[in-house]
Amino acid sequence: MNTACWVDGRPEQRLSTLDRGLHYGDGLFETLAVRDGHITMLQRHIERLREGCRRLSIPAPDVELLQVEVQTAAKNCTRAVLKLIVTRGNGGRGYRPPAAPEPMRILLRYPWPEYLDSWRQQGVHLRVCATRLGRNSRLAGLKHLNRLEQVLARMEWQDSDRIQEGLMLDEEGLVIEGTMTNVFVSRTPGTLATPDLQHCGVAGLMRAYILEQAEAAGLDVRVGRLTLAELLDAREIFLCNSLIGVWPVSAIDDRIYEIGPLTRRAQQWTDAAMTGACG
Amino acid sequence: MNTACWVDGRPEQRLSTLDRGLHYGDGLFETLAVRDGHITMLQRHIERLREGCRRLSIPAPDVELLQVEVQTAAKNCTRAVLKLIVTRGNGGRGYRPPAAPEPMRILLRYPWPEYLDSWRQQGVHLRVCATRLGRNSRLAGLKHLNRLEQVLARMEWQDSDRIQEGLMLDEEGLVIEGTMTNVFVSRTPGTLATPDLQHCGVAGLMRAYILEQAEAAGLDVRVGRLTLAELLDAREIFLCNSLIGVWPVSAIDDRIYEIGPLTRRAQQWTDAAMTGACG
Repeated sequence: MNTACWVDGRPEQRLSTLDRGLHYGDGLFETLAVRDGHITMLQRHIERLREGCRRLSIPAPDVELLQVEVQTAAKNCTRAVLKLIVTRGNGGRGYRPPAAPEPMRILLRYPWPEYLDSWRQQGVHLRVCATRLGRNSRLAGLKHLNRLEQVLARMEWQDSDRIQEGLMLDEEGLVIEGTMTNVFVSRTPGTLATPDLQHCGVAGLMRAYILEQAEAAGLDVRVGRLTLAELLDAREIFLCNSLIGVWPVSAIDDRIYEIGPLTRRAQQWTDAAMTGACG
Repeated sequence: MNTACWVDGRPEQRLSTLDRGLHYGDGLFETLAVRDGHITMLQRHIERLREGCRRLSIPAPDVELLQVEVQTAAKNCTRAVLKLIVTRGNGGRGYRPPAAPEPMRILLRYPWPEYLDSWRQQGVHLRVCATRLGRNSRLAGLKHLNRLEQVLARMEWQDSDRIQEGLMLDEEGLVIEGTMTNVFVSRTPGTLATPDLQHCGVAGLMRAYILEQAEAAGLDVRVGRLTLAELLDAREIFLCNSLIGVWPVSAIDDRIYEIGPLTRRAQQWTDAAMTGACG
């Protein structure tokens, strides 16, 4: 399957060179998992996109329009990834947006990535990236198009067979997330923690879903500061996003980790979400 | 004059929706002033672009190719702005760049902006923006395409007749730059200071040129930390970039500033650069 693309709902492989997404990264994106024509957590993706638009003052695309477009793209797909980009559209020269921006929707359909089943079963190896995340509360949590930090972090290693993901710290040295995942740790039985994203990081939908499930299950859940020492000292560590669900972490650099019961439980929760039991 | 555009040297208004400039802001740009067919500081722009490519590990476009393309675009133009964007090109899904990236060159020619002569003569009004610059030494100084912070800062005011530029502080509250300019202050006669850009900010060519001229003129030049209190307390404040040359600051919010001799001297230096006396 090759990449398919639609711009504002029409099959189209190209975009105006005046688009502010290109010039400034002035926009947002969502990455959606498709399985048997069904899109995982579609409503949540659309809600997050609209919330991002609100925070950046980009007029949000119509909900039903988005639903129809992504569902059409997902139709008859056994397995695929949809990437939906919304930019502030064209806008002259200079940072100031036009008074009445006309946002663009770019929808891309990619083949499902080659994730090995062993990563999910036996865990992945993580490296601690040297590239840090800058702190900016105005942008924190948003899935915006300014992603050079993630690109530079991902360029730090070549051997994808040995290392599957990189851990990113912020400029103060606190643990925030993976380059494409959120991170959870369990430091004592029955407790689960994930970094707060007040200053940087992407507020992932799977992260939110796991937090909800963990609280509903009566676990002691903490969202707050997480130091690298605390993470390295944890009993269980796992990663999540909308495509992978949950990956246990079996090693960070030279340290080895066991895959524990909370990680397997989080996998059960996200499996349910990914097979359609959650809207 | 409408906007003209070339992609990889060919007249073309559109770009692939797979371009990493759109997806991640994975690229750099230069903004060049054209006067009577001549491009101000062309060699310096090309050198900075290539240095930025080196820092981001983007294969740098050939110097002579760039020269020919921008000079062709500038030909017969009395007054125009060229914007040259270089992206890492197309590259699948995910942050990891392709093993052999094929960078794209997007060259746009815009009408000269409507800068009033009074701004240059009698100075401009500055506001202190609430939007802060995140600190990231890997990206500091680069004129990269991750510019959401500048977009949000520029959205803080609407009245462009009254306020011409916004001052940006970093997350620690230090003065860094304007949304589209660098900033200089003179706190005592014969001294000139500008913020260091170790943690954030764009290392402007006019800033570098003014620093060189000021040192050659025997001024006491300091590049370092600048607090907002120190800036507000300065005798002279001015802004610079490749298009405006030097704008004196006559007001910041409710404070009024005199336009002093160092500001006028900096204007003379940049005028010389902009009319072709400097390569």
